[in-house]
Amino acid sequence: MKLAIDAMGGDHAPKEVVLGAMKAVKEFPDLEILLVGKENEISNHMTNREKISVLHTEEKILATDEPVRAVRRKQTASMVLAAQQVADGTADACISAGNTGALMASGLFVIGRIEGIERPALAPTLPTIDGNGFVLLDVGANADAKPEHLLQFAIMGSIYAQKVRGIAKPRVGLLNIGTEEKKGNELTRLAFDLLREADIHFVGNVEARDLLEGSADVVVTDGFTGNMVLKTIEGTAMSVFTMLKTALMSNMKSKLAAGILKPELRGIKNQMDYSEYGGAGLFGLKAPVIKAHGSSDTNAYFNAIRQTREMVQHDVIKNISSMIKN
Amino acid sequence: MKLAIDAMGGDHAPKEVVLGAMKAVKEFPDLEILLVGKENEISNHMTNREKISVLHTEEKILATDEPVRAVRRKQTASMVLAAQQVADGTADACISAGNTGALMASGLFVIGRIEGIERPALAPTLPTIDGNGFVLLDVGANADAKPEHLLQFAIMGSIYAQKVRGIAKPRVGLLNIGTEEKKGNELTRLAFDLLREADIHFVGNVEARDLLEGSADVVVTDGFTGNMVLKTIEGTAMSVFTMLKTALMSNMKSKLAAGILKPELRGIKNQMDYSEYGGAGLFGLKAPVIKAHGSSDTNAYFNAIRQTREMVQHDVIKNISSMIKN
Repeated sequence: MKLAIDAMGGDHAPKEVVLGAMKAVKEFPDLEILLVGKENEISNHMTNREKISVLHTEEKILATDEPVRAVRRKQTASMVLAAQQVADGTADACISAGNTGALMASGLFVIGRIEGIERPALAPTLPTIDGNGFVLLDVGANADAKPEHLLQFAIMGSIYAQKVRGIAKPRVGLLNIGTEEKKGNELTRLAFDLLREADIHFVGNVEARDLLEGSADVVVTDGFTGNMVLKTIEGTAMSVFTMLKTALMSNMKSKLAAGILKPELRGIKNQMDYSEYGGAGLFGLKAPVIKAHGSSDTNAYFNAIRQTREMVQHDVIKNISSMIKN
Repeated sequence: MKLAIDAMGGDHAPKEVVLGAMKAVKEFPDLEILLVGKENEISNHMTNREKISVLHTEEKILATDEPVRAVRRKQTASMVLAAQQVADGTADACISAGNTGALMASGLFVIGRIEGIERPALAPTLPTIDGNGFVLLDVGANADAKPEHLLQFAIMGSIYAQKVRGIAKPRVGLLNIGTEEKKGNELTRLAFDLLREADIHFVGNVEARDLLEGSADVVVTDGFTGNMVLKTIEGTAMSVFTMLKTALMSNMKSKLAAGILKPELRGIKNQMDYSEYGGAGLFGLKAPVIKAHGSSDTNAYFNAIRQTREMVQHDVIKNISSMIKN
C-alpha cells in the first residue's frame, strides 16, 4: 500500500510530516509513503529513508490562496501532485494538512467523485466524554444541501464508522433542533423520512446539546450547520479554557492549586483533542483523501496515516460505491 | 407600569416567581406586578402583598404540552391569561418561564405581531468572556427563514441592544461559516446584501468560533442555526465542566486542590450563566413578552422583570414599529 502525502501543508511542514511518516512506516510493515514537496527541506528531517520516497516540487498552495483558482493554476503544487499520484494509480490515497478548500477542489477535479455520489462531504471525528468519539458530516464541503445528499452522507458515514472505527452497527443520527420526528426545518423533515427507510441503523434526531455525550456514532447534517456546530464546539471549549486559565492565574493561592492540578487539566485538553481520531475524511471521492488538522504534529500525522491506511485496507470506497449503486 | 407574570411556569414555580416579584417591586418604585396562577400556592410564599396582585386560575400549560394545541384549548391557563392581560391593556408586558413554544403561540394568537413584522424572533442574551454579552436571534421561533426576516431580526436586535442594553451603536453581525463577504449558504449571501444597506451598524459576517469572544453585540441568524448554536454552546460548556469535575475528583491530591479553587471555579460557572442578562425576548410582538429560563431562581426572575421593565420604559416596541414602517 502506498500513500501520497503533501509534505508542505500545515503549520509544521515539512518537519512534522516527515517525522509522522517515519513513525508510520516503522509501525506498519505493509506501508510505503511518497512525500511530495521540496526535496532538500524534506531531506533535512529524514533520518531513515526506508519505504519513504520523495517527489520533488517547488510549488505549493498557501492557506490564503483562493481554493479553486489555486488548484487550477498551481498544477505542480505539492497538494495537487499528491492527488495526481492517486488519480494515476501510483498511490492508493492521499493526505494533506493544507488549505481545506483546495484539498476538496483537488479531490474533485483530480481524483473525481464516486459514481452516484452527488456531493462529497467533509467528515471529522469529534471527541465525546466517554472517549469513543463520533463522525460528523458534512462540516462544510457544501453549504447548501438537499435531503438526498444527507442520505448519502449517512451511508458514507455509517460505512466508515463500521470499517475504520470498528463499530459493528453504527448509530446514525440526524442533527436537529429537537428529538421529535416532526421537528426542524424543511431539509431535516424530508431527510428524516429518507433516513428512516435507508439500510442503516438510524436512531432519529439528535440534539446539538447531546453530541459530546455520545448520542450517536455518526451525525448527519448539511455543511453550513455542521461547520457552525464544529466551530461552536471549538470556540466554546477554547473560551471555557481561557476563563479557566484566567481564574487559575488570578491569585497566589489559585496559582499554587493550579500547579498541583496540571496533569489533570492537561488530561482534559487531551480529551478534547480530536487529532487522536485522525484527520477529517473527504468522503465521496474515488479514493481516500484525508485532511489532517492544520496544526498537526508528529502524532497527528501518524494518526491520519493510520486512519487512511485503514480506509484503504478495508475497501471503504468500494463499499460506499456498491451501497450507493443499490 | 404593570407586568403580568405566569406564576406557574418553570421548574421552581410558584415559589421563586413570587420571591423574584417581591424583590423587584421593592427595588423599582414604579412597578406593579400581577401574578397569574393558583392563589393559595402563590399566597404561601408571599410575605408582602404591596403592589402585587394575584389573578387566580386552576389551569396551566405543561412543559410536555403540544404548544399550539395547548394554547387553543387551555384558554384559562396561567400563561394564556397573562398574555390576555397584555392584550386587554391591563398589563404592559408579560413574563413566563414555562413551555417556550406555548409562550410563542400565546404571544402570536393573543397579543399579535407588530404591523410589518413577518416573523417574531426568540432572542436570548448570551455570555461573553469580557462579561458584556451579546444578543442572538432567532434561536428557534421559526426554523426556516428568508433574507427579509433576518433583516427584521437585525433591526429589532439593534434597537433592543441600544435601548435596554445601553449600547450606543450596537455592532450587528451575521452568523456565518466564514468572515468573507461571499461565504455561506444562499440565505446568508442574500441577507448580507440586505444588512449592508440597512440603517444599523452592520459589521459583516461573524463566525461561531468567535461568539464568546464578543465579536458583535447583536448576532443574526435563522432559527434553526441559532437554536443549534445555542444548544451547542450549552452542551459543550456542560461537557467541559463534567470532564473538569471528573478530573478534579480523580484522586486525593486533586480533590484537595479543587477545594482550594472552589471560589474560582464557581466564578467561571457564574460567568457562563446567562440568567444575569434576563430572559429571552420574544421580539416582534405588540408588547414585550419575555421567556425566563425554565430553571429560573429568585434572581433570574428578578433579572427578567428588570429587563421587561426596561423594554417598557424605553418604548422598545414603538421604536421597532416606527423603524419597520420606514
